[in-house]
Amino acid sequence: MKSALTEENPFISTDEVREWLKQRNEAVHVKIEQVKFADMKQWYTDPQDGSIRHESGRFFSIEGVRVKTNWGNVPEWSQPIINQPEVGILGIITKEFNGILYFLMQAKIEPGNINNVQLSPTLQATKSNYLQVHKGKKPLYLDYFTGQGEVESKVLLDQLQSEQGARFLKKRNRNIIVEVGDDIEVLDDFCWLTLGQIKKLLMYDNLVNMDTRTVISCIPFGDYPADMIDFYKTLQPGTTESDEFKTSLLMSMLETERHLHEIDDIISWITRLKTKYELDVVPVPLNSVEHWVRDDYSIYHELKKYFSVIAVSVEIGNREVRSWTQPLIKSAQEGIMAFLVKRINGVCHFLVQAKLEAGNFDIIELAPTVQCLTGNYRDGFKEYDVPFLDYVLNAAPKQVHYSTLQSEEGGRFFKEQNRNIIIEVGDDFPVDVPENYTWMTLNQVLIFIKFNNYLNIEARSLISAARFI
Amino acid sequence: MKSALTEENPFISTDEVREWLKQRNEAVHVKIEQVKFADMKQWYTDPQDGSIRHESGRFFSIEGVRVKTNWGNVPEWSQPIINQPEVGILGIITKEFNGILYFLMQAKIEPGNINNVQLSPTLQATKSNYLQVHKGKKPLYLDYFTGQGEVESKVLLDQLQSEQGARFLKKRNRNIIVEVGDDIEVLDDFCWLTLGQIKKLLMYDNLVNMDTRTVISCIPFGDYPADMIDFYKTLQPGTTESDEFKTSLLMSMLETERHLHEIDDIISWITRLKTKYELDVVPVPLNSVEHWVRDDYSIYHELKKYFSVIAVSVEIGNREVRSWTQPLIKSAQEGIMAFLVKRINGVCHFLVQAKLEAGNFDIIELAPTVQCLTGNYRDGFKEYDVPFLDYVLNAAPKQVHYSTLQSEEGGRFFKEQNRNIIIEVGDDFPVDVPENYTWMTLNQVLIFIKFNNYLNIEARSLISAARFI
Repeated sequence: MKSALTEENPFISTDEVREWLKQRNEAVHVKIEQVKFADMKQWYTDPQDGSIRHESGRFFSIEGVRVKTNWGNVPEWSQPIINQPEVGILGIITKEFNGILYFLMQAKIEPGNINNVQLSPTLQATKSNYLQVHKGKKPLYLDYFTGQGEVESKVLLDQLQSEQGARFLKKRNRNIIVEVGDDIEVLDDFCWLTLGQIKKLLMYDNLVNMDTRTVISCIPFGDYPADMIDFYKTLQPGTTESDEFKTSLLMSMLETERHLHEIDDIISWITRLKTKYELDVVPVPLNSVEHWVRDDYSIYHELKKYFSVIAVSVEIGNREVRSWTQPLIKSAQEGIMAFLVKRINGVCHFLVQAKLEAGNFDIIELAPTVQCLTGNYRDGFKEYDVPFLDYVLNAAPKQVHYSTLQSEEGGRFFKEQNRNIIIEVGDDFPVDVPENYTWMTLNQVLIFIKFNNYLNIEARSLISAARFI
Repeated sequence: MKSALTEENPFISTDEVREWLKQRNEAVHVKIEQVKFADMKQWYTDPQDGSIRHESGRFFSIEGVRVKTNWGNVPEWSQPIINQPEVGILGIITKEFNGILYFLMQAKIEPGNINNVQLSPTLQATKSNYLQVHKGKKPLYLDYFTGQGEVESKVLLDQLQSEQGARFLKKRNRNIIVEVGDDIEVLDDFCWLTLGQIKKLLMYDNLVNMDTRTVISCIPFGDYPADMIDFYKTLQPGTTESDEFKTSLLMSMLETERHLHEIDDIISWITRLKTKYELDVVPVPLNSVEHWVRDDYSIYHELKKYFSVIAVSVEIGNREVRSWTQPLIKSAQEGIMAFLVKRINGVCHFLVQAKLEAGNFDIIELAPTVQCLTGNYRDGFKEYDVPFLDYVLNAAPKQVHYSTLQSEEGGRFFKEQNRNIIIEVGDDFPVDVPENYTWMTLNQVLIFIKFNNYLNIEARSLISAARFI
């Protein structure tokens, strides 16, 4: 991949992007109202099992599952879960201008977005969307990703990546980046940005949507520009602490020798944990999920924990107003996703957690050091221990290299944002960690991302925010 | 991993191993008789759904599934399948003597083995085995793999690998190699062999069991001995065609540049096919599986195709005779597993197939170029086309670099053997191949094996037979 980490852009500056998103936000008419389940159109509650489904049988459904596991403190529970077996596309078109690779980004509204318009990939479409099940228009730029039609593009990456295992049943999307050679029309609400600009915009709360974050997290280190590697070779100790940290992050991405564990050892560790932990998930009727209550407007846990399922009516538009109804998931509170990072052999190592969630495709996935809802520690009762949470909550400001609120996907989640944090630990922080944790360099993290379904969406979201220069 | 490809062995020569296996075969008392399902002890037929289960609820069960897919010519079918959710251990202990790594192999009998005794890993145990559900003795050498007890060992590799997707529902086993430093008692029926000897024994029919083949197929190229790499660097064009082929195989393993496709491109290809093909597998009662017939002795397809489920009584022993009953799967005929190999850029490339089977963990796995039962082409009616089958059946003898009969696991399969073939294609064989096929170097194959669940057991069995010096 050609140099793309610059924040210089002759098309639009980073400040202008922020202003542009703000203007789009102001210009757009958005009306989201919670409605009764019974008042949704084209969505119905199955009289047999209480599940919520679309009349077409497509898109997604809200169902019930019973989970049994020997991971954590809770051996068995039932919960609602989103079942979306279709694999969708999250795709970005790129094009080189004057030796620099630009990403075609979209200012897009989703009903659940906390601030309406966020920076999204060129295309985000479920299979139902692009097969036009809802009889809508063909998604813009679709042909560049499907290889159909008369357009030409080259696939730079195409990976299957998981989404929230606590909310989705084995959901995966294709994360695709294609490059075009020919000129391409930049439609309304689209613009060309560099990877450096996108990473800069990740320093702000809720500007870059989840789909963008997962796609850019997949860009492999080998594809970073040669000039960055040259830059690395000439590195001097940074003049500020922040520079020094960025330098060691960059080393963590480029360095293939000074890691604590070999890839083979990390695979052995994953194998051992996948064998140790059992995850048994069976479908149960949604209306028999224990401890969950249903009223006309929502399905919620009796202690108001975790999340609820709600129904909304949506009106969105500028000149042309579209309206529809759909279910959304509403989180009970904010969550925290934090990576602890430690310099080992002079190279940043990320403390990765092997985490089990109900909807995981293969028992455990690699997660941030801390990933939890804040309700767990705000309440007096700790349902489960969260190792390293106290460390994260009590970190000194100078240890915190990254801290923003980032949104989950607004097409499924109602105004959900989670704090994303990267914290550097000191020399006194032990190298020895509990069984479910291990240290990995960014280089190693990126290798595992490449082979699909290893890093969870929460970890990838944080990785996407890593900035090096 | 230290040099292990030598066939020299001060403990036991390769010829002596063959003689030893032969003697063990003659010395052992084995009596296998087909019995009625109703005459099995501790195994019962569920009166509700007709499934066959063990009283403990463990080991494995024979169940029914209905399969829907858009892969191949048959969009929907039902079949019996083995459900064995427990992850077992296939483990080999290694130890260095005089700078050479030796593998502790076992002469082991399984009820379904075509010739009774085969060369097996140090340990092969289901979770039920090693948790001693059948109240038997603790499996020999178990502690070296579980890290329990007072023994010490170092894990060289530990990977989750799939087994036959046409017969098992998402079955996986841990493939483990550990190294010990201290002396270790070599019990009756065990001996130390080099990797070179095991690969030499793979030139003979049915001597090396399936479990050994899958474990040694996982040994990563990076762990091959330095002297082999030195040897590679000094390579001259081989004096015989066979030498020349081995040389290009070795290059295929060590070469990281002269491949036709990049790893990222192969991942994109896999992603595209996993998205294109749908695999919907739902449990159905075994007694309602269409086109399958059940009598007192077996469950078979009405056209006597594919396989049947039978019940056997087993008597095995030398001094001490053990006896039990169990279900086994009996194949309708032999199968063929063949890799076509082509020199591209002077390096051997394997023609890998993306193949969908009912029990696959993730839709498709990478399979040999040809993998089918012979019944499919022997009968007049071709249920499905098998690309490249004619090429394999009509290859000239000088193209055939490897051709042996190899057994499937005798603990589940009754006298099942499949022809394993490696064929070199000529310059006139096209580089362009159909959508479900791609060319990979051995180096790339070994990378995908490492990341688990990519290469199927049939492909790994063939890869294990590749010999380089």
